[in-house]
Amino acid sequence: MTQSPLNSVDDGFLDGLRAQLPAACFRPLSPAYLEEPRGRWMGHAAAVLAPSTVLEVSAIMAACHGARIGVVPYGGGTGLVGGQVMPKGGPAPVLLSLERMTTLRAVHADENVMVVEAGAILQDIHVAAEEAERLFPLTIAAKGSARIGGNLATNAGGVNVLRYGNARDLCLGLEVVLADGRIWNGLSRLRKDNTGYDMRNLMIGSEGTLGVITAAALKLVARPAREGTALMAVRDPAAALDLLARARAQMGEGISAFELIHRAGLEFLTETLPDVRLPFAQIPEWLVLVDVGLAEGLDPATALEALFVAGREAGWVMDGLIAQSEAQRHAFWNLREKIPEANRRIGAISSHDISLPLGEIAAFIPRAKAELAKLGGFRINCFGHLGDGNLHFNVFPPKGGDKADYADLRDAIKTCVHDLVDVMDGSVSAEHGIGRLKTGDLERYGDPVKLEMMRAVKAALDPRGILNPGAVLPAEGRSRLG
Amino acid sequence: MTQSPLNSVDDGFLDGLRAQLPAACFRPLSPAYLEEPRGRWMGHAAAVLAPSTVLEVSAIMAACHGARIGVVPYGGGTGLVGGQVMPKGGPAPVLLSLERMTTLRAVHADENVMVVEAGAILQDIHVAAEEAERLFPLTIAAKGSARIGGNLATNAGGVNVLRYGNARDLCLGLEVVLADGRIWNGLSRLRKDNTGYDMRNLMIGSEGTLGVITAAALKLVARPAREGTALMAVRDPAAALDLLARARAQMGEGISAFELIHRAGLEFLTETLPDVRLPFAQIPEWLVLVDVGLAEGLDPATALEALFVAGREAGWVMDGLIAQSEAQRHAFWNLREKIPEANRRIGAISSHDISLPLGEIAAFIPRAKAELAKLGGFRINCFGHLGDGNLHFNVFPPKGGDKADYADLRDAIKTCVHDLVDVMDGSVSAEHGIGRLKTGDLERYGDPVKLEMMRAVKAALDPRGILNPGAVLPAEGRSRLG
Repeated sequence: MTQSPLNSVDDGFLDGLRAQLPAACFRPLSPAYLEEPRGRWMGHAAAVLAPSTVLEVSAIMAACHGARIGVVPYGGGTGLVGGQVMPKGGPAPVLLSLERMTTLRAVHADENVMVVEAGAILQDIHVAAEEAERLFPLTIAAKGSARIGGNLATNAGGVNVLRYGNARDLCLGLEVVLADGRIWNGLSRLRKDNTGYDMRNLMIGSEGTLGVITAAALKLVARPAREGTALMAVRDPAAALDLLARARAQMGEGISAFELIHRAGLEFLTETLPDVRLPFAQIPEWLVLVDVGLAEGLDPATALEALFVAGREAGWVMDGLIAQSEAQRHAFWNLREKIPEANRRIGAISSHDISLPLGEIAAFIPRAKAELAKLGGFRINCFGHLGDGNLHFNVFPPKGGDKADYADLRDAIKTCVHDLVDVMDGSVSAEHGIGRLKTGDLERYGDPVKLEMMRAVKAALDPRGILNPGAVLPAEGRSRLG
Repeated sequence: MTQSPLNSVDDGFLDGLRAQLPAACFRPLSPAYLEEPRGRWMGHAAAVLAPSTVLEVSAIMAACHGARIGVVPYGGGTGLVGGQVMPKGGPAPVLLSLERMTTLRAVHADENVMVVEAGAILQDIHVAAEEAERLFPLTIAAKGSARIGGNLATNAGGVNVLRYGNARDLCLGLEVVLADGRIWNGLSRLRKDNTGYDMRNLMIGSEGTLGVITAAALKLVARPAREGTALMAVRDPAAALDLLARARAQMGEGISAFELIHRAGLEFLTETLPDVRLPFAQIPEWLVLVDVGLAEGLDPATALEALFVAGREAGWVMDGLIAQSEAQRHAFWNLREKIPEANRRIGAISSHDISLPLGEIAAFIPRAKAELAKLGGFRINCFGHLGDGNLHFNVFPPKGGDKADYADLRDAIKTCVHDLVDVMDGSVSAEHGIGRLKTGDLERYGDPVKLEMMRAVKAALDPRGILNPGAVLPAEGRSRLG
C-alpha cells in the first residue's frame, strides 16, 4: 500500500472551514496541544479545531478528506505513546480536539447505560455514574484530564481491568465520523446484537486512525455492596499468582484489583515523596495490593483475613495489613498510585508496558533482570496489574545516577526487554497502544499477516490516509520515532 | 463494490486438491451437510473437504482463491440463520468442514486459558474445563453438536451471557486462515494487548465471511463455590427487571442467568411434553428462572430467599420456589431448556431473536402483541435471556392450528415484529447472526454507513468474495432468502 502524499493547510482551506463553522471552533494554537506528555518532543499543527457537534466534526473531516489534509484527533492529551502528537517534518495537520463535546447525553440507570460525548473527562463520568448510584469502573492515573474518546480510541486499561475489563469491554456503542465525514450512528444501548461485523471493536483501540469517536454508550455496573483493601507481603511473583488464584476461588469476581508492588517502587517513594508513609517497618521485596468489592452478606475484612490465613499457611504470604477504615484503604491505594510520580522523579532510562501469559510472569521477571544486568547496574521497578499479566517494567539508573547519562543505552535496554517479552509470547504494548513511539515494535514483533490485514483495513476505511497519519501504521518507508 | 463472479468446481480443480491433500480430507457429500436445520431448504456443495491441520486449510483456501471458488466454512451445522447452507442457484461451493480439527492443544489451568481447534464440540470443551476444575461458561441448546469455531464465527450467546458475556468475551486469541490462504497466528493467551487493530473481534461474528477460524485461545473462569436456582412468579416483565436490579445490588456478578418464561411456553410443554412436570399448580403468567453462583461464605438458598422476600415486599414477586437439591435445580432448568423443543412441536409461524434496550422491554411486549393482534389471533411465546434484553418472541397459530395454514402471513408477522424492534432501538438478531436468512433485515434496519464500512472491510479482506458467498453481505442485486 502506498499512501497518497498529504497536503499542507493553506489560507484558502481555512477560509473554507471558517465559512462553514462557528468561530468558536477555531482555537488558539497553544503549545499545550503539541507537547508529548513526558517532554520527549514538541509536535506541530496548522490549526486547532474544536467542534461542538458531530455535524461539525463531519464537516471538518469532509473538508480535510477533500483537500488531503492530515487530522490528529485529540482527547485529553495524556497518551503515553505519542498518538496525539504529530512530530515536525511533514505537512502540519489539523488538530481536532473533542474538548467542547462534553455533554452527558443520557443516563439510563435502570439499564446500566450512560451515553456521553467523546470529550467528557473520565472523572466527570465517574461522578455522573455515582450520582446515578452506579459505577463506571474504568480508571487510570490520568482520569482528571483524560477524555473518554481518547480512552476508547486507545482501549485504556488501568487497575480495574481484572474485574471489569478494558475500555472496549465497557462500551456498548459508538458514534463515529469516518475519514470522509460520513457519520456512523452506532450508539447502541443493546447488550446483545449480532447484526454484522464488529465495527465497534475495530474502532476501539485504533488510536484515531480509522475514525473519530464522537460519542459512546458506556456500560455502568452496580456498585459493590462493601469494599475492602489489603496489602500483603508475598514471597515472590509466583506466590502472588497463587494467592490470586486462591482469592478467586474464594471470592469469584469479587476481586476488583490485584496489583504487584516491588520494593524499588517503595524505595523511590521514600527518596522522592517522603510524605508518603510506608506501612511496614521493613520494606518487603514484593507486595500485593488486593482490592475487593463483595456482595451483601460478606464482610471484606473477614474475607481478606481468610485469604491472608490461607496464603500464610501455603507459604505465599509473609505479612499483611487489612484496611480497617476508608482512610486506611485510601492510604494503601495512595502508595500504589504515587509510584508513577516517584518513577518520574527518579527518571527512567526506559519504561515498558508489557503483558505476558500469566504462567510466564514468574519466569520473566528474573530472566529480564538477568539479561539487563549484562548491560549495566540498573535499578528496576517492576509493578502493575499482575492479575492481567500486565507489568510496568521500568529501568532506572543506579542510585544517584541521571537518566540523561544513560540515553545511549535506551535502545539496547528496550530491545532487551521487548525481545524477551516476544520470546515468551507476550505483548510490548499491554495498555498504552502503539501511537508513534511503538510503530517499530509493531513491525518487529507483530504477526506479519495481522499487519497486512491492518493495512488492508486502514486502506479500506481511510483510503487517503488522512486520519492520524504516522500513528499505528506509518506510511511505508517513513522514518519512525521511538 | 461489485464482486467478481465465482466459478464452478471442475474435475481439474479437484484433481489439483487431491494431489496436495491426504485422501482423508475428502468426505462423502452427505445430505446432513446440506440441510437447513429446521428443514427450510436443502443446500448444495461440490465437495466436502475436512482438513486436519491449519496448513491443509490454508492449501484449500489458496486453491479456491486462485480458482475463484466459493467456500462455505462448516462447524456443527446448528446455526439458525442459514449461514452454513448455500442454497442452490449459483455455482456449488466447497464445503469446508472443521470436524477433524478437534484437538485440545493446551490447557493452562493456572492462567484460566484453554487452546482448542475450531472443530472441538462445545460440550467436550465443557468437560475438559471441568477436568481442569474450571468452567467454560458459553452454553447453548446445541452444545452437544455445535463446534467452537462456529460458536465464535457467529458470536454465540446463550443463558450465561448475563454473567460471562458472549462468545467474543470468552476468547483471547484466534488462529485464522484468510481468503487467500495466509495464516494469521493470533493465538494469544494475553489478557491485555494493545498492539494494533482488534482483528480478533472483527473475525468473531463475521460468520465465516472474512476468514476461517481454525483454533482459539479461550478464557476459562473459576467455578463458583456454590450454586443455586429459583423460579419466581413475577407480576410482569417490568417487575422482573426490577427484581434483576435488586438481585444485582444484592449479589453483584453472582447472578449467572436470569431467564424469562411466559405461560405460553409452559402450556406448550403441557400440550407436547406432558412428562415435564410443572412445579406450580396454577400456571402464572410470567416466571423468571434465577441462577446464582456465589462466593465462599454465601449460601445460595439463603440469598435467593432474601431476594424472594424483597421482591415480594416490593410487589414484584407473587410466588416462588427455591431449589433444595441439585435434582431440583435440574428440574427447574429442564423446564426452561425444554421450551424450544415444545415450540418446535407446536410449530411457529415466525420466530424472532430480538434484543431491546432493557428500559424498552416492558413496553415492547404489550405493544408487539397489540400490533400482531391486528394480523390475527395468534399464540405468542415470549421468553429468553431477559437480563441481556434478548427475547425469543415466537408467533404460533391459534390452539389446534397448523403453521402451514399461516405461511402467507409469515412475512407480515416478521415485518410487524422487526419494525417495532427497530423503532424501539432494538436488534433483529440478538444472538443468531445474519447468515442468509436475515440479509434483507440487515439492509432494511442496519445503519447505512455501517453497511458501507462492512462492505469495504469485506472487499479488503476477501477481494474475490469467495468466503461464505451470500452470507451477511450478499452481492448486490442478488436475490435473498428469508
